This record gives sequence, structure tokens and C-alpha cells, in this order.
Amino acid sequence: MNSPTFSSQLLEEAVEQFAKLPGIGRKTALRMALFLLKQPIEDVNLFSASISRLRNEIKFCMICSNLSDADVCPICNDKQRDNSLVCVVENAKDVLSIENTGQYHGVYHVLGGIISPMEGIGPADLRIEQLEQRVAEGTIKEIIFAFSATAEGDTTSFYLYRRLSRFSVQISSIARGVAIGDELDYTDTVTLGRSIQNRLPFEVKQNK
Amino acid sequence: MNSPTFSSQLLEEAVEQFAKLPGIGRKTALRMALFLLKQPIEDVNLFSASISRLRNEIKFCMICSNLSDADVCPICNDKQRDNSLVCVVENAKDVLSIENTGQYHGVYHVLGGIISPMEGIGPADLRIEQLEQRVAEGTIKEIIFAFSATAEGDTTSFYLYRRLSRFSVQISSIARGVAIGDELDYTDTVTLGRSIQNRLPFEVKQNK
Repeated sequence: MNSPTFSSQLLEEAVEQFAKLPGIGRKTALRMALFLLKQPIEDVNLFSASISRLRNEIKFCMICSNLSDADVCPICNDKQRDNSLVCVVENAKDVLSIENTGQYHGVYHVLGGIISPMEGIGPADLRIEQLEQRVAEGTIKEIIFAFSATAEGDTTSFYLYRRLSRFSVQISSIARGVAIGDELDYTDTVTLGRSIQNRLPFEVKQNK
Repeated sequence: MNSPTFSSQLLEEAVEQFAKLPGIGRKTALRMALFLLKQPIEDVNLFSASISRLRNEIKFCMICSNLSDADVCPICNDKQRDNSLVCVVENAKDVLSIENTGQYHGVYHVLGGIISPMEGIGPADLRIEQLEQRVAEGTIKEIIFAFSATAEGDTTSFYLYRRLSRFSVQISSIARGVAIGDELDYTDTVTLGRSIQNRLPFEVKQNK
């Protein structure tokens, strides 16, 4: 589709802005702009204000670097949570994914990326020193690496392991294996191999 | 996916706002919000301002009801265009689609919808009186109906035809037929039947 001749510069600009969002082409951008034109003016102003406030007012938690409205995020602030257990993740989205499971009651450390020579991201670009400082304080008993099961994730785990091994802290990594619901036929050999190596004692799960 | 526990209310609000857009779920909305957090602050402010200005400042052309920044849209204002030829369309998006073809040099009339009993849209909800007024002024020679090839489109054409037949104006409708690139095998019988009825003298198109 060529760029249509818009009869309105305002519409043209809004479409251009929407089309900058990830995964949004000009056609979808136009649909969004026309959708907003049909909404009540107050709703659109709320939308606009929300975007601006998000970018201007959001902070990084001074403890874990997670996204936060205050200096310390609600997770680090939560006295119910175990702050001797720290899960190290790539970004704020991964925190959400893990929180979503409802299975984790420790705290986090957000690195702000993973080591990726392809994208030019090295250890110095990540919040590794801050993690070392937290460990050095002595209250942390266990560190869990929770990275994607990719070469970059493995590299980051290995690098962090070496940096943290001088501290007396337990280091673990989230389990890799056959995903729940996956059939063995369709599981790749590396995953299947690892899941055999890392087999666990069989347990009959009781419903709570 | 359940709603994740966001560590930031600002993020939560932005995700909710994005998720109101057509075709955007919470997961994509989150991706958009996190994307904006990584963009320069000025860019995000431009995005936010563009949305707000779009909704607050856009106007409807007082002649054709198309979206416009000024009282009269650039199409109605264009002295090169034939204002004795009026193409009647459902909405501003259809104007864009037709402009995109580069084949039309008349002007438009945007109805603001089509007659749809299912959605409770009747003739009174559309800008039909304004169209009659334009025709009554006497400069219009031909009206082209350019609606979707649906029951609603056909109903609207038929209704408008009856309303406009009292004026001495030529009324036509865009051609229906086998779409360019479509194979006959896969063309539905109604379309194929119509394209036989509405056959045209064969012409060898010369390259200009």
C-alpha cells in the first residue's frame, strides 16, 4: 500500500506516530487513529495523558531496578516477601511473567538486558555491580537465574555465576525441560536431553 | 493470561489504555507500553500530543464531511478537481482507499455510516439531507455510489437512489466483478453472475 493522501495533516501525524509502535503497520495505525476519532474526547485525553505520564513519571526501583511509581517498588517494599531469595531477570516484562505464575515469593533483580555480543550488549551495560552490592550486604541466601533458554541467556548465567561465586550464596537456575502440554514427538532433542539429565524424583501432587 | 500484578500503576494504566484500541490485547498493549519506556522522552511526548491534537482539533469538512484540519477539506478546495462529480462513501477511510487508486478526480460525500438495521443505523443517522442539499444546488451532474458489496451497502444504494431520483442527476455505482488477480474457480457464483451481466466491450488498454 502506498501512503494514502490524507485530507488531514493531524490524521497523517497520528498515523505516523502509531506506525512507530512495534508490530503496527500504516494500515493498523490508520484504524487506531480513526477509532480514537470516534471515542469521547475525555477518553482520548486520558489515553494521551496516560502515555505522557508513563514516560515522564515512571522510576526504576532503587533496590531491584524494576519499574516503579515510587523510589522503592511494591515488591521490594512487601514485608511478606522473602528478601533473602533474589530472582535475576533480563527485564521488567520477565518480572511480570514470573509474578503471573503466583509461584514465587522472593524478590527480584532486573539486569536491564542480557549479554549479547550480536547486539553489542556487554556486562558493563547491565546492572551487575548493583547485584554484587546487594549480595555483599549479606542478607541474600539464594540467587535464581531466570533467563530465556537461549545462547545469550546461558552466557549471562555463566558470566554471573563466575562473578558471584566469590560470595557464599547459593546459585540456582530455573528448570529447563519439556513444556507443560508439549508432546515428546515434537520436543527438540536438546530440551529432551536436558530434561532427562535433570530428572526429578516422581511425586504425586496433592490438590491443596 | 490473567492480569499480571504490575509493580507500577502508571504502567497498568497505560496498558489498559492501549488495550482499548481495536485488535490490541493486554499482551500487545504491554509490549507497546514497554516500547515507549525505551524511547526518548521527547518522542513519547510528541506521540501523546499528536493523539490529543488529533481528537481535539480535527474537523469535518463543511461541504463533504470528510476529515479535515480546516473548515473545507483540501479535496473540496482543490480547483483542479471536478466538483460536478460526487462519490458517496461510508466513511473517511473509504475516501483514502479511493484516493489511493489515483483514478478519481471528482469530489466526495461522506455519509458517516451505511444503513444497517442490525446495528440500529437508519437513514436519519446519516448525512443524507446534506447530500440532497448539495444536489439541489444544481452543479452536480453525476453521483457515484461507492459502498461495500454487502447487503447494507446495497440497501443504502437503493435508499439513496429513491431519495435522489427526483433530481435530474445521473446516478451510477462502482463496478462489481471478479477482483483483479482472482481465479474464476475461486470466485463465488453471485460475483461471477454479476460480472457476466455487467460485461463490458473488450478494449485493448494502451500504455500511456
